[in-house]
Amino acid sequence: MGKFRRVPVGIVGASGYGGVQLVRLLMDHPEVELVYLGGENSIGKSLGDLYPHLTHAANLPIEAVEPEIIANRCEVVFLSLPDGLAWQIAPTLLEKGCKVLDLSADYRFSDLATYTTWYGIERSDRSTAATAVYGLPELYRDRITEAQLIGCPGCYPTASLLALSPLLKQGLIVPETAIIDAKSGTSGSGRQPKTNLLLAEADNSIAPYSVGRHRDTPEIEQICSDLAGHELTIQFTPHLIPMVRGILATVYATMRDPGLVGDDLLTIFSAFYRNSPWIKVCGSGVYPQTKWANGSNLCYIGVEVDPRTGRVIVMSAIDNLIKGQAGQAIQCLNLMMGWDETLGLPKLGFYP
Amino acid sequence: MGKFRRVPVGIVGASGYGGVQLVRLLMDHPEVELVYLGGENSIGKSLGDLYPHLTHAANLPIEAVEPEIIANRCEVVFLSLPDGLAWQIAPTLLEKGCKVLDLSADYRFSDLATYTTWYGIERSDRSTAATAVYGLPELYRDRITEAQLIGCPGCYPTASLLALSPLLKQGLIVPETAIIDAKSGTSGSGRQPKTNLLLAEADNSIAPYSVGRHRDTPEIEQICSDLAGHELTIQFTPHLIPMVRGILATVYATMRDPGLVGDDLLTIFSAFYRNSPWIKVCGSGVYPQTKWANGSNLCYIGVEVDPRTGRVIVMSAIDNLIKGQAGQAIQCLNLMMGWDETLGLPKLGFYP
Amino acid sequence: MGKFRRVPVGIVGASGYGGVQLVRLLMDHPEVELVYLGGENSIGKSLGDLYPHLTHAANLPIEAVEPEIIANRCEVVFLSLPDGLAWQIAPTLLEKGCKVLDLSADYRFSDLATYTTWYGIERSDRSTAATAVYGLPELYRDRITEAQLIGCPGCYPTASLLALSPLLKQGLIVPETAIIDAKSGTSGSGRQPKTNLLLAEADNSIAPYSVGRHRDTPEIEQICSDLAGHELTIQFTPHLIPMVRGILATVYATMRDPGLVGDDLLTIFSAFYRNSPWIKVCGSGVYPQTKWANGSNLCYIGVEVDPRTGRVIVMSAIDNLIKGQAGQAIQCLNLMMGWDETLGLPKLGFYP
Amino acid sequence: MGKFRRVPVGIVGASGYGGVQLVRLLMDHPEVELVYLGGENSIGKSLGDLYPHLTHAANLPIEAVEPEIIANRCEVVFLSLPDGLAWQIAPTLLEKGCKVLDLSADYRFSDLATYTTWYGIERSDRSTAATAVYGLPELYRDRITEAQLIGCPGCYPTASLLALSPLLKQGLIVPETAIIDAKSGTSGSGRQPKTNLLLAEADNSIAPYSVGRHRDTPEIEQICSDLAGHELTIQFTPHLIPMVRGILATVYATMRDPGLVGDDLLTIFSAFYRNSPWIKVCGSGVYPQTKWANGSNLCYIGVEVDPRTGRVIVMSAIDNLIKGQAGQAIQCLNLMMGWDETLGLPKLGFYP
Repeated sequence: MGKFRRVPVGIVGASGYGGVQLVRLLMDHPEVELVYLGGENSIGKSLGDLYPHLTHAANLPIEAVEPEIIANRCEVVFLSLPDGLAWQIAPTLLEKGCKVLDLSADYRFSDLATYTTWYGIERSDRSTAATAVYGLPELYRDRITEAQLIGCPGCYPTASLLALSPLLKQGLIVPETAIIDAKSGTSGSGRQPKTNLLLAEADNSIAPYSVGRHRDTPEIEQICSDLAGHELTIQFTPHLIPMVRGILATVYATMRDPGLVGDDLLTIFSAFYRNSPWIKVCGSGVYPQTKWANGSNLCYIGVEVDPRTGRVIVMSAIDNLIKGQAGQAIQCLNLMMGWDETLGLPKLGFYP
Repeated sequence: MGKFRRVPVGIVGASGYGGVQLVRLLMDHPEVELVYLGGENSIGKSLGDLYPHLTHAANLPIEAVEPEIIANRCEVVFLSLPDGLAWQIAPTLLEKGCKVLDLSADYRFSDLATYTTWYGIERSDRSTAATAVYGLPELYRDRITEAQLIGCPGCYPTASLLALSPLLKQGLIVPETAIIDAKSGTSGSGRQPKTNLLLAEADNSIAPYSVGRHRDTPEIEQICSDLAGHELTIQFTPHLIPMVRGILATVYATMRDPGLVGDDLLTIFSAFYRNSPWIKVCGSGVYPQTKWANGSNLCYIGVEVDPRTGRVIVMSAIDNLIKGQAGQAIQCLNLMMGWDETLGLPKLGFYP
Repeated sequence: MGKFRRVPVGIVGASGYGGVQLVRLLMDHPEVELVYLGGENSIGKSLGDLYPHLTHAANLPIEAVEPEIIANRCEVVFLSLPDGLAWQIAPTLLEKGCKVLDLSADYRFSDLATYTTWYGIERSDRSTAATAVYGLPELYRDRITEAQLIGCPGCYPTASLLALSPLLKQGLIVPETAIIDAKSGTSGSGRQPKTNLLLAEADNSIAPYSVGRHRDTPEIEQICSDLAGHELTIQFTPHLIPMVRGILATVYATMRDPGLVGDDLLTIFSAFYRNSPWIKVCGSGVYPQTKWANGSNLCYIGVEVDPRTGRVIVMSAIDNLIKGQAGQAIQCLNLMMGWDETLGLPKLGFYP
Repeated sequence: MGKFRRVPVGIVGASGYGGVQLVRLLMDHPEVELVYLGGENSIGKSLGDLYPHLTHAANLPIEAVEPEIIANRCEVVFLSLPDGLAWQIAPTLLEKGCKVLDLSADYRFSDLATYTTWYGIERSDRSTAATAVYGLPELYRDRITEAQLIGCPGCYPTASLLALSPLLKQGLIVPETAIIDAKSGTSGSGRQPKTNLLLAEADNSIAPYSVGRHRDTPEIEQICSDLAGHELTIQFTPHLIPMVRGILATVYATMRDPGLVGDDLLTIFSAFYRNSPWIKVCGSGVYPQTKWANGSNLCYIGVEVDPRTGRVIVMSAIDNLIKGQAGQAIQCLNLMMGWDETLGLPKLGFYP
């Protein structure tokens, strides 16, 4: 257990897009070693059976999900499962001393009643849930550093909150006027085959969905309320876009002080994110495109003021599978382990 | 010149995407005959030189743009030119008795000062411009029927106004809260080669642009103001989407009466568009996708109410090149000629 | 039953992409009336339940598939079912006097043993199958005109055979050297959700499949053998391309006479297709793109000779769902009914 | 100049897709330091002016191209310029002791007459050109290790030669029967705006081009002739595919011994590439997709035998901008410097 030993890490739920991104990124991480892959539906298979291009790269078998055995082999466990499963596994892992990073919605809510209302799942693990920290490092860096259990943010909330936080934290906007019009590539909907995700259906089309009732809404509201200091309701509309990866959130809000100009806000955003290496605030008049972020853990943010309407428009672009999912989880791990926040994560997108 | 003679029609500016759609649609129209194609940059060429797939179909040469000669040959002239050129040609055509349908911005504004402010072009043709009718049949059907000169709406204004009009006309929303988040395929930016429109740049990306200052904003505001009965300022943000065709406008507004539910609004929208054959209001909980409209002159409209925020969200989907451009111009022509509004226009999209 | 009565037509299997194209095209056809839609899996639903954009357009319910009842209501029946089902329905329809156009593979083979070998389905309907005519009008126009039962070609065979036929018929190539490298949009694989057809998987990728063993191979070989006058084996490789519609077949063959030049071949192709209104032979040095054909029933063909290798390269582009499926079936119907071959079919694609 | 110093590297022509990939990859390379970016058209700009997403990452200015100054600052120079410019710069750099890796066609040909015939450029630098080594490590690893000047292969030749080499080297095929049907994403055509590369034109379409006369043909033939031991003519057809990145080459050839089966060939391919870490030979019945390779320096190869025709079909998939361009150049650099061949290069694609 000397100085050069790498930290043994496991992934439960390795076969989805989130899981396979975790595998790719963790294989390149200099301080960790991937020692366990778990998944009930693919036991005995290798990742190469599910992703033929990984045949040569990832020769770990997919094993059954037995928390005690996992805990014996891993110091850190990423849970990349459908909503409603992580809370059945995490307590055992935590008791055994593992650090746990959950990519599902299970540990994102401080109020389990909200979780139950929106996800339809009753839970009785109040004490464990109470220890979870919301894994958005740009807002909760210190708490993440101390945490044993992380509820990693959803991809839409990541893009939305990074755009809204400086405005809410500084009291610059009328919170109730905030509207998030979000656009996502189809990989955000997973790898399970569904008709609406077929290329023949989704290509050359834009599809709004879950208007006024998407499950990421209460997650966004919870953090916005925390920042604003009182309960907020936020308008959130997701759209499916004909591309594989990427989220753009276009956020509208009425400014409290209509005299602020774009450069004022850029200064505020730059200051807010001064110590956040993964946030890039664009220059005046420059608006981010999702392609810029694809393949990296970066979030690009552009800010514009419309003096005619008194609104600020903030645009944030991320790779939904990296900063929106696997990369952000590893960013949290870096903090939890006391490593540099950027360690092992891709710093430049694969443009074009 | 008997009863069965077809109406001779000309197109000035036939080489862009708008022009080529006009050619395709007019060739299928039972009451018109395409007799003239004009364009300064391609004189002497055929449309097949610019669009090889049309070699066999459209054997008219592209001729010089001489208004008097055009007027001698055509009863109806479509102008499909960059902004700022139509007003130099239209007066002569009108004097000679032609009906003129202009697809540029030149005749969309009742107040030329607004045009000059946003387009940077001084004009001295106040009297001609004053006779132009805004060519959105669902709002101005009667006036179009009587008109000799039509300023055809932009593609973004078409989608936006069809979504907003019932709300404004019936006084259902607080007008100043209206926000239009619009998404367009790249064909809306034309066929001139530009770096940002390359497939390698635009594919797998979403790009907001002209935030708070797009030229379609005053056009939308003019009509909204007309409907609301007072001057309005509207928030409008366009985005470039990685697809060829289609516009989706997602429109947000705060309802005056927060007690209205989705079905109330669907009833109001259905009533508003009862006599508009090209508008299809979706059923409860159904939201339109741009693919549905591609290839047809239809506009699909979905309506949702968010009781948590008191907002109505309206989504409208059109084919930017048909209902947003060439098809709508022909719809206007049908009205001007006393023909059925649907004559010669594609009634079903080419899904998938 | 007067002169103006439209012909009553039914479609069995209306819910797939082939079926929905048939619906769209037949609704625009001036001589037919769609009176029946059938499908076992969607009985009682409407087409609008499966394709929301058709809610307003196609209000026929989907009914059970009872051949005798169908035959009482329809003069013509299109069968658009998975392979292996049509031959269980068609005989009854034929006995009752219907004209039947089958879009599956069931009636494409003159030798049922070949069908059984490649499709794994035993059949005992030799006498019915023997009356079927292969529905490629450019090759078998006269026989189609006389037929009661049509086995409509597959989409790959359509593109491939239109490229190869003039070469084989005129004895210009060494037949065994023919190689067909075919590329198709994903709509050709249908609307059933499968992982490899998801946008997230298929976009930004090219995937060869069924190399050396695709079921369309014996279909292509059967017709090529007929044209060449002896049994042939043909190399055929399909590829899935990240687009919705369209097939490009790139065909290579060694010329018997290496002295032939490109213009010789263009002359031969033009002559071969002189009476085929749906075939457009491109000029010298012009190669077809699938986008040109999308939305129309056209097949564009380009021909090039490589004097360095003595090979001819023929490229053919079609819309897989129109000339490759529904449009070609209607083209056959036009011939069977004595109507103009182009009646009711789209003559120009929806470019771009 | 101690053991831990990084090697100073420059890039001439940093603004194109090849250049920007070099920048991204070299910034992640542990043994090099990027010290110079050159480009005549963008002097004084930064890379962030051309690629806004790089504003924060690459703060080197773009400088004038003065070979002597470059040589003073750099040990290694990558030339990423249009064809015909490198040979005017390279000799000075070489004289000054730099290692030079040219990504253009200028140093790919051992016979300058062939270059002049296909590229239309006369040259008088026979002696320099004679020292250049063709930079395909899987074939010429030893010579690259010794070289000072590398002519990096084109992207199409890379995919094509990696598929063909084992067959030619082992004498398994009749060389003259080889046909390469190649498919490329549009980034291979560069970032200069051209109509045919617009998303609106290239999306949803496949376009063959330069049939029988593409400039990569003589490059492929030169290496194939070297492997076969006699002069060869090869059929090569490129196609533009609606995607950003990736090349798939589908290669057909008649086997000398028709008794060979697929597994025989897989064994031969695996042995041939045993020491090539960037080549992944797929298992039996598995065919590569371009998406697998995107973002990595890997080439995936699938092999199939068609016993009916006696042909072997080889499919190779690469990322055209990495293994087909910038990554392969760095792979060559690794060899030239005595580093591990895989150093600093991405080992897993960014799937999906």
